[in-house]
Amino acid sequence: MSRTVLTLSRRARQQALSIALGLALGPALAAGPAGGPFPDAQASDPAKLGWMVGAPPPPDRVIRFDDGSYWAFPAMRWTVSNFRQLMPTVNVSRGLGPVAALPSALRDDLDAVRFTPLNSDRPMTWRESLDANYTDGIVVLHRGRIVYERYFGVLKPEGQHGAMSVTKTFVGTLAAMLVAEGVLEAGQRVDHYVPELAASAFGNATVRQVMDMTTGIKFSENYADPNAEVWAHGAAGNPLPKPKDYTGPRSYYEFLQTVKPEGVHGEAFHYRTANTDALGWILARVTGKSVAQLLSERIWSPMGAEQDAYMSVDSIGMPFAGGGLSTGLRDLARFGEMIRNNGVFNGRQIVPAIAVGDIRRGGSTADFAKAGYAQLPGWSYRSMWWVTHNAHGAFAARGVHGQTVYVDPKAEMVIARFASHPVAGNAAIDPTSLPAYHALARHLLAAPR
Amino acid sequence: MSRTVLTLSRRARQQALSIALGLALGPALAAGPAGGPFPDAQASDPAKLGWMVGAPPPPDRVIRFDDGSYWAFPAMRWTVSNFRQLMPTVNVSRGLGPVAALPSALRDDLDAVRFTPLNSDRPMTWRESLDANYTDGIVVLHRGRIVYERYFGVLKPEGQHGAMSVTKTFVGTLAAMLVAEGVLEAGQRVDHYVPELAASAFGNATVRQVMDMTTGIKFSENYADPNAEVWAHGAAGNPLPKPKDYTGPRSYYEFLQTVKPEGVHGEAFHYRTANTDALGWILARVTGKSVAQLLSERIWSPMGAEQDAYMSVDSIGMPFAGGGLSTGLRDLARFGEMIRNNGVFNGRQIVPAIAVGDIRRGGSTADFAKAGYAQLPGWSYRSMWWVTHNAHGAFAARGVHGQTVYVDPKAEMVIARFASHPVAGNAAIDPTSLPAYHALARHLLAAPR
Repeated sequence: MSRTVLTLSRRARQQALSIALGLALGPALAAGPAGGPFPDAQASDPAKLGWMVGAPPPPDRVIRFDDGSYWAFPAMRWTVSNFRQLMPTVNVSRGLGPVAALPSALRDDLDAVRFTPLNSDRPMTWRESLDANYTDGIVVLHRGRIVYERYFGVLKPEGQHGAMSVTKTFVGTLAAMLVAEGVLEAGQRVDHYVPELAASAFGNATVRQVMDMTTGIKFSENYADPNAEVWAHGAAGNPLPKPKDYTGPRSYYEFLQTVKPEGVHGEAFHYRTANTDALGWILARVTGKSVAQLLSERIWSPMGAEQDAYMSVDSIGMPFAGGGLSTGLRDLARFGEMIRNNGVFNGRQIVPAIAVGDIRRGGSTADFAKAGYAQLPGWSYRSMWWVTHNAHGAFAARGVHGQTVYVDPKAEMVIARFASHPVAGNAAIDPTSLPAYHALARHLLAAPR
Repeated sequence: MSRTVLTLSRRARQQALSIALGLALGPALAAGPAGGPFPDAQASDPAKLGWMVGAPPPPDRVIRFDDGSYWAFPAMRWTVSNFRQLMPTVNVSRGLGPVAALPSALRDDLDAVRFTPLNSDRPMTWRESLDANYTDGIVVLHRGRIVYERYFGVLKPEGQHGAMSVTKTFVGTLAAMLVAEGVLEAGQRVDHYVPELAASAFGNATVRQVMDMTTGIKFSENYADPNAEVWAHGAAGNPLPKPKDYTGPRSYYEFLQTVKPEGVHGEAFHYRTANTDALGWILARVTGKSVAQLLSERIWSPMGAEQDAYMSVDSIGMPFAGGGLSTGLRDLARFGEMIRNNGVFNGRQIVPAIAVGDIRRGGSTADFAKAGYAQLPGWSYRSMWWVTHNAHGAFAARGVHGQTVYVDPKAEMVIARFASHPVAGNAAIDPTSLPAYHALARHLLAAPR
């Protein structure tokens, strides 16, 4: 298997290099880059496989960034808990204040909760769903107390895991905060804040269209297409020295200036990572602080996080707003709990209630429907949150390999999950996760304790 | 000036690349790589110069690893507080326990303390010495309380700064702990623990000789000599992809196997970074844990550090034991205070008292004298600590650009300092720091409060 992992095809290497941190793939993608079948959760357990263990590790257990081995499955399951060992990163400081306690009230009745996966008639238990989804760690809060907590593979409570596209939700929330505070005008044009984007497709979009990903931009995240813009995006943001013959953009910001229009702004939801990078640039320009600094000052520090988080950076030190955040699992849960409480946590109003209310109400379901997510009927997307509009009013942050912050207001439940599913796309993961979350919520409502 | 910084000569680039993290230069080196004169502390203040500020930063304010700009003065003054933004790193977790408080009892009488620099007849104040030494941050503990604390440039209390060769002292202390516990035999040969080193100069040295740097190995840290082994060491440990025509060792461990003998083991002190890397390998082999893990489990977590630290890694993920640690300043002070208290801190015995006692007694002053440090008469080196054998029994950890942990038992004083002096060598820094430390100690003894 080590041979399989390390002897990557040129395409796989290019892909791995260009993805640079597991850039979030569109959740509509159903198939992993290398296709299947994949070893299951047990067979791909990164702790059992012994990646990067030993002094030195055996050659077939070394994971590298520059040869692409870091992103091949199953080595990727180690990588997601160790991005910082492969690439430059910037700290997201928790500051030096006290940790906001997450009281524990563990329950042993959740493993047996049953649900029926989407597109299936064969029930599954909650515990079984964790393996089905290649879960690396999961915390369930009920009424603010930890009722369930598990770690698998190489993730530890004191470790950090790539949040992937959950990063977008943090950036969207920061933007929503600044809008609520009047610092950022949602109706203003992008080029008002970032003149460098005037000639790009973003220039005449509004900030709100960027926040809700209804921009009309040409940005394919189809990895099967060698001309997809996502390759150029990854190559631009790759922190390694550029090849001598490289002529493309050399940073995320340079890339954003090359994005061409496609379609009309404001008519439909299109999940495109470049929107979040553009939003990160807007935030940095408006506040004079990087997304990492903002995250530290506006969320991480006030919420009393128990660990620093970090973000990957490109070659000029700009954090990857579209997917570069790694955090501790319980800090992800703290964030979810703060949002569930309408922005209040650790004794303070961290996100304005009006901003959380706007997120919870969601965006346009009609715009969302045009994106064709068959498994997400009636959903919408608002300020980089996925809103279910289900009976519980649930909404979520979602990352490409199964990372999530799932907030269920009616059940007073928050789920924070890190995962490393081999398939890069929630379409493959949702069938055994969305109904599991909802079943757990119903169980907690029925047996609240 | 930006032109000066970015238009580096080939030699400067090679040097910067090879140093890979500001590899500790021998403290005997009196002249900086580029010679002088250098802008003073104010003119080189990295906050004023605005490195890496802006979205994006202006091109002449971007600092990169791969072009060597990170290590050119004055950009280096930003780099030392931001190594992780330039290269891969591994976390040194503080764990999730409570922080051990460092009570504060700030005094305003220390700035005016006067001393006479070495080789000078012109007195200077303590406050003046901070600029003279390009201090980035300094904390003075007296009887365990913070009596003085200052930050300059881009270092913040919640930031981390490169400890450079102070890293060695942590590694030496870990080794001393394992010796005291009987896990590691100081009299045992290196190749007993690391058979891969049998054919190298380290093979027939004892662990103690490595710990005290009395090995007879060929390892020049003379950066003016293009054939100095320190270049090969840096190239081996450089985490960037190796050039196509590169045929040398590809990791720190591979490099160590190439080290040739020179002279006789156990006869004289020779300050050579490779010893610490070899010691790190021994520790990893004996414990099954990396130096970063050991540092977390044996020191950082038990001492109740307030921040995670981190270490740079080579291309196979091995931490740079010789100089790769970055820490918060107050955590460095906690470490010193723990050692001052014979290994007790945060309510527990962290380092065995017998190990601290052995360090405090020092090594052979005769062996040390042979190294010819004119400014360090009567000193010795033990378990990677510098022992003054002065009337106060002071001993210290020392880094190449002025970093220190200075423990003065008689004055019940600990100084933790981060600095970024343009000259890579304590010979240029000691004249305005060692007498300053001693003057402060005498002042605290005379006016203890």
